[in-house]
Amino acid sequence: MPIDPNAPIEVTAYKWVPDLARGFVKDMRVRWALEEIGLPYRERLVGGAGGGDADKSAEHFADQPFGQVPVLKEDGLTLFESGAILIHIGEKDERLLPQDPAARKRAIGWMIAALNSVEPFAQTLFLMGHVAQDKEWQSEAKAAVRPFAQMRLAQLSDVLGEHEWLEDRFTIGDLVMIDVLRAVSEYELVTAHPNLAAYVDRGTSRPAFRTAMAAQLAAFDANEPVAA
Amino acid sequence: MPIDPNAPIEVTAYKWVPDLARGFVKDMRVRWALEEIGLPYRERLVGGAGGGDADKSAEHFADQPFGQVPVLKEDGLTLFESGAILIHIGEKDERLLPQDPAARKRAIGWMIAALNSVEPFAQTLFLMGHVAQDKEWQSEAKAAVRPFAQMRLAQLSDVLGEHEWLEDRFTIGDLVMIDVLRAVSEYELVTAHPNLAAYVDRGTSRPAFRTAMAAQLAAFDANEPVAA
Repeated sequence: MPIDPNAPIEVTAYKWVPDLARGFVKDMRVRWALEEIGLPYRERLVGGAGGGDADKSAEHFADQPFGQVPVLKEDGLTLFESGAILIHIGEKDERLLPQDPAARKRAIGWMIAALNSVEPFAQTLFLMGHVAQDKEWQSEAKAAVRPFAQMRLAQLSDVLGEHEWLEDRFTIGDLVMIDVLRAVSEYELVTAHPNLAAYVDRGTSRPAFRTAMAAQLAAFDANEPVAA
Repeated sequence: MPIDPNAPIEVTAYKWVPDLARGFVKDMRVRWALEEIGLPYRERLVGGAGGGDADKSAEHFADQPFGQVPVLKEDGLTLFESGAILIHIGEKDERLLPQDPAARKRAIGWMIAALNSVEPFAQTLFLMGHVAQDKEWQSEAKAAVRPFAQMRLAQLSDVLGEHEWLEDRFTIGDLVMIDVLRAVSEYELVTAHPNLAAYVDRGTSRPAFRTAMAAQLAAFDANEPVAA
């Protein structure tokens, strides 16, 4: 496990989050990528989502204007947005991002497809569960936005077909797409497409994914709030 | 105007869209970037959003798995997702993307912030206008999701402050952020922050933006459906 307090790379994560977010906070994407290439990193834990923004320091907002995680620091560079951090890490090692320019750009294209064409619809569906909880219109609202998520998942299933990964090998495009898919709040929308379910299983079975997940959860377990 | 039928770069756009989408289809981002650096491109127009997916050919879906635009083709490379296309174009010319590695990564970070941390909340608010139209719960749904868009805009206003651009010069990060902001469906949420409104005005006053907009609209005007 490449967590090392003396590593030159620092990754910011939350100290603790409520159950709903356990395993799904976006530092997972960065931890997973670093585990794939065995690159050590040190953790910096900041006030969690559960504590609200007040729990986050001005120092953290100076690094991350939305008060979120992850932030990566390395050698004077401060970078936020997991997608940008993954390009930075990918450029260090072609196991994550091919060096061939065309293959590199296609991989980045899939990552951005995950971030801007798939995740927003999944998030909207999740958000309806959250903001409309206990409201009479919740089921109508979910029914209204669900077809958008379903359309994207069907299109993604079509293009993946029987391929193992979105291009001819695993890249940061798959890493982010799989992380987006596993978080779809109505997961039966994903398993409706057996090839997508198998794709997620292929990704989350990778040893690097499992080690990254264990590291995120270990931090939460170590910082569990004391019951009042 | 760098539209040239013999240019080596091809940009795919829609033939025509309904009024609501005029000027906001995402090939704007690519046209704008190419205009900033005076790089010629040829247009390939495909069935529009107004015509539904049936209007789009299998050939187009082979290039763009979600049936959307833009697609860029150049020298054997086929790229989709405007964010990925902008990195590709930005790497050709440092007026869009600095060559210094840290500055380049920060600019990409802002672009991804626009795509994954700002646009999704703006889109959710827009979507509530669309899917909940004429529904009793529309205003409640909008009221429930609006605070998320407001929070992000306030955070963005804070970090922009009195700076001209998000970093010390215009980059693809500003280009996409401004394109996201100008499309916020309740634009008074943007103008509530005078510095954001001025930032959008600075971007959309650039000659390259205006030429790109004229080109997108010219294609729609030329392909206006004949009234039944």
